[in-house]
Amino acid sequence: MSQERIIQVERDILSKNDAYADENRRHFDRNGIFALNFVSSPGSGKTSLLVRTIKDLKDRVTISVIEGDQQTSNDAARIRETGAAAIQINTGKGCHLDAHMVGHAVEDLAPVAGSTLFIENVGNLVCPSAFDLGEAHKVVVLSVTEGEDKPLKYPDMFAAADLMILNKSDLLPHLDFNVGLCIANALRVNPRLQTLIVSARTGEGMEAFYAWLEASAAQRAARAKVA
Amino acid sequence: MSQERIIQVERDILSKNDAYADENRRHFDRNGIFALNFVSSPGSGKTSLLVRTIKDLKDRVTISVIEGDQQTSNDAARIRETGAAAIQINTGKGCHLDAHMVGHAVEDLAPVAGSTLFIENVGNLVCPSAFDLGEAHKVVVLSVTEGEDKPLKYPDMFAAADLMILNKSDLLPHLDFNVGLCIANALRVNPRLQTLIVSARTGEGMEAFYAWLEASAAQRAARAKVA
Repeated sequence: MSQERIIQVERDILSKNDAYADENRRHFDRNGIFALNFVSSPGSGKTSLLVRTIKDLKDRVTISVIEGDQQTSNDAARIRETGAAAIQINTGKGCHLDAHMVGHAVEDLAPVAGSTLFIENVGNLVCPSAFDLGEAHKVVVLSVTEGEDKPLKYPDMFAAADLMILNKSDLLPHLDFNVGLCIANALRVNPRLQTLIVSARTGEGMEAFYAWLEASAAQRAARAKVA
Repeated sequence: MSQERIIQVERDILSKNDAYADENRRHFDRNGIFALNFVSSPGSGKTSLLVRTIKDLKDRVTISVIEGDQQTSNDAARIRETGAAAIQINTGKGCHLDAHMVGHAVEDLAPVAGSTLFIENVGNLVCPSAFDLGEAHKVVVLSVTEGEDKPLKYPDMFAAADLMILNKSDLLPHLDFNVGLCIANALRVNPRLQTLIVSARTGEGMEAFYAWLEASAAQRAARAKVA
């Protein structure tokens, strides 16, 4: 297949995806569902972050989860242990969720009006950046064990995200990780990126993430009403 | 003076100010000048932050400074010691800079095309929030010695800012200041606020601020070109 033909096929895939994403976004906005797309490399602690968030906010926010993995339904099972509704998408050979899969999962999951929907993407810092799922924001989770250079090596993902969560901050005393340098690298690819430093294990900084969640959901709902 | 009359006078003042601010902004954008308005309570370390920034970036960025204070030209003198051009505005009884004063100071200072202009406002977390000076962004500086509740007590200022700098991070080990709670409070009044944690004394985290500055200036210049 010539290079030109490959690019054409990619464009077709992305434009079809974007049409499904728009449909999802309209559905979310009409029903006051605040949807977030969590992206990261494998092992950043996304599922632990979501589990802790659901437990800590269970009296204030209704949260349901779409889990994406190539295989296994381990993560959906971990989420369900919290009492939250969760649905697993197995992408098989696929390296990312797409808006069409998510649309079907939303039909099955049927999140209630006014609730929050977490979509945990396949662990992959490359492909998920190109696929809009209809979310309000992409949230990129980076473990401080991964190195400060990741935003420069995977710029598309950090450019596509609105929030970067630096997770596992409890390990900082044992590492040479330079938080300032990592944030500097992220801002070089996305000057408007917000950043939070948290430990899903100890709870440090999670309060700031919860405030971000609730304030961003309220802002989204107000905008959806006007539109 | 009746309450209604006072509100009318305030509106007139603000609408006149906004017209001057628009003029300043057009001047900045035409000349590729990246202007920031630094606001805080007294003693947050704004001048030290600017002095360190100018020294660290002197080989990469041309920076000039407008200093606002009720009395004295101490701060402009501190800035000039770095070799940067600075002009002092004394507001006398005035509690904030306004766009008209800044317009005159810009004429005198004549910052070169492509440069960065720091405007250090009068130390005051209330009045400067209402006065647009034509800047690209308001940057609110909060010292970690001030307490986590300041964003809730002075919400207008934190709502008006695009970036919050938590300064004096080197003092954190000696304080009970809860960084996560402070950021949570700030996000409650401004869900899109960016935050950075720095020490202008030790240099910790300043790299992230410099990356924010350079990336934001480039973004602004690109937008001004399109407009």
